[in-house]
Amino acid sequence: MRKIGVEEIEDIALGAALLGAGGGGDPYIGKLVAIGAVQECGPVTLLDPGEVPDDALVVPIAMMGAPTILAEKAIGGSEYQVLYDNVSAFYGKPIYAFMPIEAGGVNSMLPIAAAARLGLPLVDCDGMGRAFPELQMVTFTIGGGSATPMALVDEKGNSTIFRTITNKWTEELARAVTMACGGSVSVSLYQMEGAFMKKYGVKGIVTRSQTLGSAIRKVKEAADCTPEEAFLRITEGIRLFRGKISDVRREVRAGFNFGRVMLDGIGDCKGHGAYVEFQNENLSATVDGRIVATTPDLICLVDVETFQPVPTDALKYGKRVLVVGLQCFPLWRTQEGLELVGPRYFGVDTDYIPLEERCKGGLL
Amino acid sequence: MRKIGVEEIEDIALGAALLGAGGGGDPYIGKLVAIGAVQECGPVTLLDPGEVPDDALVVPIAMMGAPTILAEKAIGGSEYQVLYDNVSAFYGKPIYAFMPIEAGGVNSMLPIAAAARLGLPLVDCDGMGRAFPELQMVTFTIGGGSATPMALVDEKGNSTIFRTITNKWTEELARAVTMACGGSVSVSLYQMEGAFMKKYGVKGIVTRSQTLGSAIRKVKEAADCTPEEAFLRITEGIRLFRGKISDVRREVRAGFNFGRVMLDGIGDCKGHGAYVEFQNENLSATVDGRIVATTPDLICLVDVETFQPVPTDALKYGKRVLVVGLQCFPLWRTQEGLELVGPRYFGVDTDYIPLEERCKGGLL
Repeated sequence: MRKIGVEEIEDIALGAALLGAGGGGDPYIGKLVAIGAVQECGPVTLLDPGEVPDDALVVPIAMMGAPTILAEKAIGGSEYQVLYDNVSAFYGKPIYAFMPIEAGGVNSMLPIAAAARLGLPLVDCDGMGRAFPELQMVTFTIGGGSATPMALVDEKGNSTIFRTITNKWTEELARAVTMACGGSVSVSLYQMEGAFMKKYGVKGIVTRSQTLGSAIRKVKEAADCTPEEAFLRITEGIRLFRGKISDVRREVRAGFNFGRVMLDGIGDCKGHGAYVEFQNENLSATVDGRIVATTPDLICLVDVETFQPVPTDALKYGKRVLVVGLQCFPLWRTQEGLELVGPRYFGVDTDYIPLEERCKGGLL
Repeated sequence: MRKIGVEEIEDIALGAALLGAGGGGDPYIGKLVAIGAVQECGPVTLLDPGEVPDDALVVPIAMMGAPTILAEKAIGGSEYQVLYDNVSAFYGKPIYAFMPIEAGGVNSMLPIAAAARLGLPLVDCDGMGRAFPELQMVTFTIGGGSATPMALVDEKGNSTIFRTITNKWTEELARAVTMACGGSVSVSLYQMEGAFMKKYGVKGIVTRSQTLGSAIRKVKEAADCTPEEAFLRITEGIRLFRGKISDVRREVRAGFNFGRVMLDGIGDCKGHGAYVEFQNENLSATVDGRIVATTPDLICLVDVETFQPVPTDALKYGKRVLVVGLQCFPLWRTQEGLELVGPRYFGVDTDYIPLEERCKGGLL
């Protein structure tokens, strides 16, 4: 158990934006919401998963929608209370703690804001260990957990509760309402007991985000290596490419940001080309026509100078980025995991091969 | 208080299909569902509105979606129980009676089926006195009633509860979920107390449907006039046109059936032309380029021989029809009524002029 204040939030936002793998929303927006809540209502208590009783009701809080819209559409003031009331009334008992459902610039932050405003603790655990675009894509689905009852509320005050026969149906119905509400909403789903959270959750994710964020901030202080080497060591990342963005194709369709970013190699990658495809999050990285990484491994683009993560909606012509691959949470590499979030689910026509195997023997 | 059995259902379905004004679904499908329920569970008790206590919970039951899809998509078995449970749990009290929300081939029938299956009475009252395509279009909206909490369930078992800031928002969100569920769903909305129902409802609508249906069935037995004259006398209808369908343009878009049916005059209308535009229900009738009737008055097409109503999704090239106008419920002719269901709401570029004034002095 420890406290999360403004300083911790700065680091968590930065680290979570990296783990967002291109998605998860703008960390600047997310940070403002969380810091505002903590400044007004005081710091939040972060619980280790082991500190949560087995029968306690633990409730994930998140935003749903296209990251591009998240950045333009305000968050109202009363969403968390409405979510609390709807969920608590459904279960007929109080909520013990909130938790994030994914790691990302916005979705790591909103549960902090919700916890601060309602005076509840936050659990150091999520259901992805990164960000994914669809709501059935959580470790809890593999554990047989149900996304519903799912509570949804928009900033205007419209709210909905879903109960569905599968988590994929939750995605369909909630996505339709999200679109009708203008493209982004606040939600609570996969409410669970402490025991289930401990068994299937990605534990320690808030702390990992904070550690990563803090280390990225200090990457230029390393005495024994270059900042890029320091960054790769901290993140345990595999360097996939270094390039200048030569083109970005994107479209917002069915509530998602789809697209492809093209890269011309720079530095030791000069003369080579690469591209990264995304659906909110980065899906695959291809260098000189060869796929070098795919979902569910994390493909992260960071600024070559500052090492700040570059989310898919901030990709711009001329920007210089380092493309890095990180290994995903082990449960995603199982057959059940790959059915949910493997490359073929997203229409990337390749079998899943772990990042570290694809990159064995060099890339260029 | 009286009983509704198979014979009554036959007449109610026929009369309600006429009042559906082109929409409200296929009476054959609706009838099968209601008759099946009554045969299995026994006849339904129909209550006069005055027999309902002022504080009793009265709950409308309906289907939402495009009539074309209603005819092809099955109704499951457990929808009414799910709706009952969700609504009753929300209010924390039992449901006193069901009622229809609109008059139409399907939506006059499903509340009968629901009442039979759950052993509840049905109230002789609805919220339109005809059919309309969008869910905020009820007299209860004029009375300040809220569509929410709205409960929605599909035949697969997915269910949703909406609470919205306006009835127009309910329409937006519920329509989105209806589409995601495949285009038609069962719903409960505008739950109300007996007192409110008595003040704003269209009372006696089930009985009126039954009387109309029975009379249409006997239209050829009239000794003193032609069947057409008998039909117009029974329905208090204004004859707008008699013609052969020469073209039907239609599209299913955003969950609605949109279209226009073209008519070449026959009999005394020979040499003249007319068309009727619709959005699920008929919106306007134009004869020789002059608008002769618009929503909210009822524009009904019936077979020239059998006087059976022809819903918009059964319009076919070559069919001979009589176009008849019926006066709408008086509350629809007020300013608040016309804002909800007047011609301009539907994009028909004319002020509302009552049917009987438009037709004064003859049509051709």
